[in-house]
Amino acid sequence: RQKCARLSDHPGFTSIIIGLILLNAVLIGLETYTYIYEEFITWFFIADQILLWIFTIEILIRLIGSRSLKLFFKEPWNMFDFIIVASGHLLVGGHYVTVLRILRVLRVLRAISTIPSLRKMVNALLMTIPSMGTIMLLLTIFFYIYAVIGTTLYKEIAPEFFGTLHASLLSLFQVVTLESWASGVMRPILAEDPTSWWFFVTFILIGTFVIFNLFVGVIVSNVEE
Amino acid sequence: RQKCARLSDHPGFTSIIIGLILLNAVLIGLETYTYIYEEFITWFFIADQILLWIFTIEILIRLIGSRSLKLFFKEPWNMFDFIIVASGHLLVGGHYVTVLRILRVLRVLRAISTIPSLRKMVNALLMTIPSMGTIMLLLTIFFYIYAVIGTTLYKEIAPEFFGTLHASLLSLFQVVTLESWASGVMRPILAEDPTSWWFFVTFILIGTFVIFNLFVGVIVSNVEE
Amino acid sequence: RQKCARLSDHPGFTSIIIGLILLNAVLIGLETYTYIYEEFITWFFIADQILLWIFTIEILIRLIGSRSLKLFFKEPWNMFDFIIVASGHLLVGGHYVTVLRILRVLRVLRAISTIPSLRKMVNALLMTIPSMGTIMLLLTIFFYIYAVIGTTLYKEIAPEFFGTLHASLLSLFQVVTLESWASGVMRPILAEDPTSWWFFVTFILIGTFVIFNLFVGVIVSNVEE
Amino acid sequence: RQKCARLSDHPGFTSIIIGLILLNAVLIGLETYTYIYEEFITWFFIADQILLWIFTIEILIRLIGSRSLKLFFKEPWNMFDFIIVASGHLLVGGHYVTVLRILRVLRVLRAISTIPSLRKMVNALLMTIPSMGTIMLLLTIFFYIYAVIGTTLYKEIAPEFFGTLHASLLSLFQVVTLESWASGVMRPILAEDPTSWWFFVTFILIGTFVIFNLFVGVIVSNVEE
Ligand code: NA
Ligand code: NA
Repeated sequence: RQKCARLSDHPGFTSIIIGLILLNAVLIGLETYTYIYEEFITWFFIADQILLWIFTIEILIRLIGSRSLKLFFKEPWNMFDFIIVASGHLLVGGHYVTVLRILRVLRVLRAISTIPSLRKMVNALLMTIPSMGTIMLLLTIFFYIYAVIGTTLYKEIAPEFFGTLHASLLSLFQVVTLESWASGVMRPILAEDPTSWWFFVTFILIGTFVIFNLFVGVIVSNVEE
Repeated sequence: RQKCARLSDHPGFTSIIIGLILLNAVLIGLETYTYIYEEFITWFFIADQILLWIFTIEILIRLIGSRSLKLFFKEPWNMFDFIIVASGHLLVGGHYVTVLRILRVLRVLRAISTIPSLRKMVNALLMTIPSMGTIMLLLTIFFYIYAVIGTTLYKEIAPEFFGTLHASLLSLFQVVTLESWASGVMRPILAEDPTSWWFFVTFILIGTFVIFNLFVGVIVSNVEE
Repeated sequence: RQKCARLSDHPGFTSIIIGLILLNAVLIGLETYTYIYEEFITWFFIADQILLWIFTIEILIRLIGSRSLKLFFKEPWNMFDFIIVASGHLLVGGHYVTVLRILRVLRVLRAISTIPSLRKMVNALLMTIPSMGTIMLLLTIFFYIYAVIGTTLYKEIAPEFFGTLHASLLSLFQVVTLESWASGVMRPILAEDPTSWWFFVTFILIGTFVIFNLFVGVIVSNVEE
Repeated sequence: RQKCARLSDHPGFTSIIIGLILLNAVLIGLETYTYIYEEFITWFFIADQILLWIFTIEILIRLIGSRSLKLFFKEPWNMFDFIIVASGHLLVGGHYVTVLRILRVLRVLRAISTIPSLRKMVNALLMTIPSMGTIMLLLTIFFYIYAVIGTTLYKEIAPEFFGTLHASLLSLFQVVTLESWASGVMRPILAEDPTSWWFFVTFILIGTFVIFNLFVGVIVSNVEE
């Protein structure tokens, strides 16, 4: 156990793992180029298997090196590493090709759990989420009400944008990012229903105001720390 | 009276009401799907009536439970609850179908008046509005002047965007959100009148600068608190 | 002189002038609707002349009421009022119809010089401009360099956007507001010259970074006050 | 040496150089207008050669005036000036016309190294870059993962946007600037694959959140100074 503990704490150990994650990322990137992938298909498969086993051994070393199983899995990043690597073993087979591919891409995320400064930063980013809870709830209510109104009023006029409640929610997300909200979404509806401008104008005014206040809250709480 | 006061202060009472508001929201959402609505039309109607009466009883309990009628309606959120629920009873009949539907959606807003943390947050958001008064007046004057100039100059060239004063105001709102201001609005006008760029460039520079200062003001007053 | 001074300091005097500026604004707005304008053309002309003369008398009262001519024109807002009103008298005649119309719209700006809170706010906004001097110079150099490079490289490929140096400057302003920079400007050029992405990506990265720092500077200097 | 040192420290010396850089900028700008360039082609060439030699002499004066060669090149802006001017002499010949033209434009950048306030500001802007290191790494990982997923899933559906890994990276940069992300990129893909919305919505939510935090960090560190 002592040996594993000392090994997993060694800076060289971490450096090698970071290097291998990088190599894995490059391989996954190269695989997206069909002409490269088709020529070296077996090499890609072999490299992937080797890397998967190295990562498995790495986690086993860290697992054995830790004082107890409970302590190891208490740290969410270890849990994250374990799931990412374990899923690579479990989901073998032709059925889950796309799922497997995306899971393999997520292995690149292990760079975050392995590089301490990134881990610290992502922890800090995740910490700001709870403080946004109430305003997120407010935004949800706000979006839901406008989506129901939008679907009720413009279902027939603009089925592409407001045909169903979930289509409306997506369209409202587009509108709140100010993307083609006028040229693409409002003006065709305005041509049929000249009073529809209030729906979009009030939605944008309230939406950007609430989101802006959400951001100000995050800034203020950041400055205070 | 004492009984009603105790009941309306009971946390379980509020929880049940929040649950029913949520149920109401889900029902209103399901109604937007035509094939669901048409199959369960009577069930939707019955559920809506039951919920309306429960909310009516709820408000009556809180009304009786409060020390005086005056005190109850002094709190704007109580007034808001009362209007939302009362309008559900008053506007029955085939004439006001769309109005009624939108009023029923607004019942979801009662989640804000019922959940204390949301109520506090919306109060805080509304409190920032008075401090924006003067800059809002400035923006109104600024928009009005540009709308009159825009209508005067581009009425004939671009009737869709600057045909009337109110169309110009809407187009300028689109331009200040930077939505298709060049590709959709300016470039077709520029093709006819090559000097028109100054109208849009100065409008965007001044507009974003004033709005940005509006936002900075809100941040600064927020940081001070 | 004393009488004029007392009159021009009277709050009722200012209130009446604000009311007349508002009336003037409404009239100018109504004039943009052709069918209203054509029916009441003489009335509009008479009202405009009466208002112009009232404003002239108002300024004369304030001018006489002030201690000296020099002191009166030292205040830039008085100078502004004087020019706006004087130009209404000077530019009579059929030749300057459009200029005259825009000058009449600018009379609405007198609301700023007359309402004290607006005057104070605009003064505050104008005060932030000098602190932006150096970064504005930097932005100018940055835009100029990219405009020259853009014109040199894409003059033939995209004459609409980069045909001349001034067309390039306008297109770069569009790009920095992120308006259709990819769909409208870059992608058609990318189809001809696959290496052109660096031009747009570096321009947006540097441009938004510099403008963002310009804004941060304004915030910081605002917070300090 | 003393003479050169005194000359290069003289404010008139700097003023003349700034004036010549400005003149150079104007000439480069005029050259982009083909009809002007073709009429005065020899004059442009002569003026350019004269300016190049003046700048060469200027740098030589400053080089001789400095205590040692090492000290002179220790200041990065001197190195920058030297490279810009030297490259003008080295790359003569018909082969490098476009490279030479762009290098000549970069001579305008010397305005930054010559005007002290600009130099200070650019130094300050460059100083904020190291503090963005970790979050830039995080953004790179985030973009890379989404680019691989996007290429894997939408390579066939939308070859223009997600055909190759580098095309995907450019498209994701477009999406994170919110430019036509829905109307141009997502909606055509959504028509083929109705589940694709999660890819764009999560990318925008995470991307804008991380970039916003990057900006907040810069503001906070700026306020602290
Ligand atoms: Na946009
Ligand atoms: Na757009």
